[in-house]
Amino acid sequence: MKIITVSREFGSGGRELGKRLADKLGFDYYDREIITAVAQRSSLDESYVEKTLESGLPKSFPFSFGRTFSFPDPAQQNYTKLLVAQQQFITDIAEKGRDFVIVGRAADVILEKYKPLNLFVYADMPSKVKRCRERATSNEELTLTDRELARKIRQVDQSRAINRQLLADGGWGEKTSYHLCINTTGKPIKKLVSSVAAYCEAWFEE
Amino acid sequence: MKIITVSREFGSGGRELGKRLADKLGFDYYDREIITAVAQRSSLDESYVEKTLESGLPKSFPFSFGRTFSFPDPAQQNYTKLLVAQQQFITDIAEKGRDFVIVGRAADVILEKYKPLNLFVYADMPSKVKRCRERATSNEELTLTDRELARKIRQVDQSRAINRQLLADGGWGEKTSYHLCINTTGKPIKKLVSSVAAYCEAWFEE
Repeated sequence: MKIITVSREFGSGGRELGKRLADKLGFDYYDREIITAVAQRSSLDESYVEKTLESGLPKSFPFSFGRTFSFPDPAQQNYTKLLVAQQQFITDIAEKGRDFVIVGRAADVILEKYKPLNLFVYADMPSKVKRCRERATSNEELTLTDRELARKIRQVDQSRAINRQLLADGGWGEKTSYHLCINTTGKPIKKLVSSVAAYCEAWFEE
Repeated sequence: MKIITVSREFGSGGRELGKRLADKLGFDYYDREIITAVAQRSSLDESYVEKTLESGLPKSFPFSFGRTFSFPDPAQQNYTKLLVAQQQFITDIAEKGRDFVIVGRAADVILEKYKPLNLFVYADMPSKVKRCRERATSNEELTLTDRELARKIRQVDQSRAINRQLLADGGWGEKTSYHLCINTTGKPIKKLVSSVAAYCEAWFEE
């Protein structure tokens, strides 16, 4: 079984690259499907699940200070329950034994024992701002200035880094956490797919 | 003309990857040849040229503090002369118009206008220490402890970072300075060549 995980900076085009890569290689593809499945399994609203999982661990998690500690509140419980459900669903995918590409969700950490090929997709800030603007769907995104968009990009990336840190020692976006890091600056994703697919195919053959 | 520059962490196997990549793609290959050429052009000893260029800018370079400044000393003159000679030689290679792979020497910066494909090769520390030990040629390297080897690796990398910073704003080893970053941890270089070559070929085709 061949697994490719795609971690990516917000606005780098990593999701599109993951999707196109799966198409090109004939692999299954997982991204939003995971949110849908977790929502169904937990009988919760999909957008609630998405928001909860992406915004990360609610504050005031029970860290112990000396001998005092506090019990988790309902928001924190919901978060960790969803995280566990998500982890279970991702492991279930792997247990099917089919080749697949999975985007985000710290899948590189969760699937470690299956020896996935871990990609990280990044770009410079102007390029990410440009890409966000081009694909903007909400009015909110359309009215942001470049500076505000850049701030939003940094915030999303920070959430991703924190989310990953709950499962592994740091390492989000650090080269050593990945097998291959791909810079999409100034290159349409479409034009990168053949290169990345060729790399992956040769990687799994060796 | 297709140019591939390979920057690398000491001990990551980047040089071997560069050489094998050139062989696989049928490209010219430049690495030590540059030292030889610069030595010949400057009528200097090859090992002196190598040592001077790799150890970087001698200290007490004329930074101006307020209105006081100092003139460069002979060691600093020698260094900058060699740097310029090296830069000239690298540009001469590009002017030949043949496809080539070049390892190190901040070639990604020097050759920027030729739009090279810039690779960065890295690995985790235990893997670099192991590789250094396996290829050790000097008695000195053979007798170093793992800890001492790790220190040496960090020192060499720091020199490389500083040398690059003379020509560009920082960026050595930072993902955004390169098109593709390749992790060689736990993977024999021989087994990575096909993947990287496939990536490069598809990259230049697009």
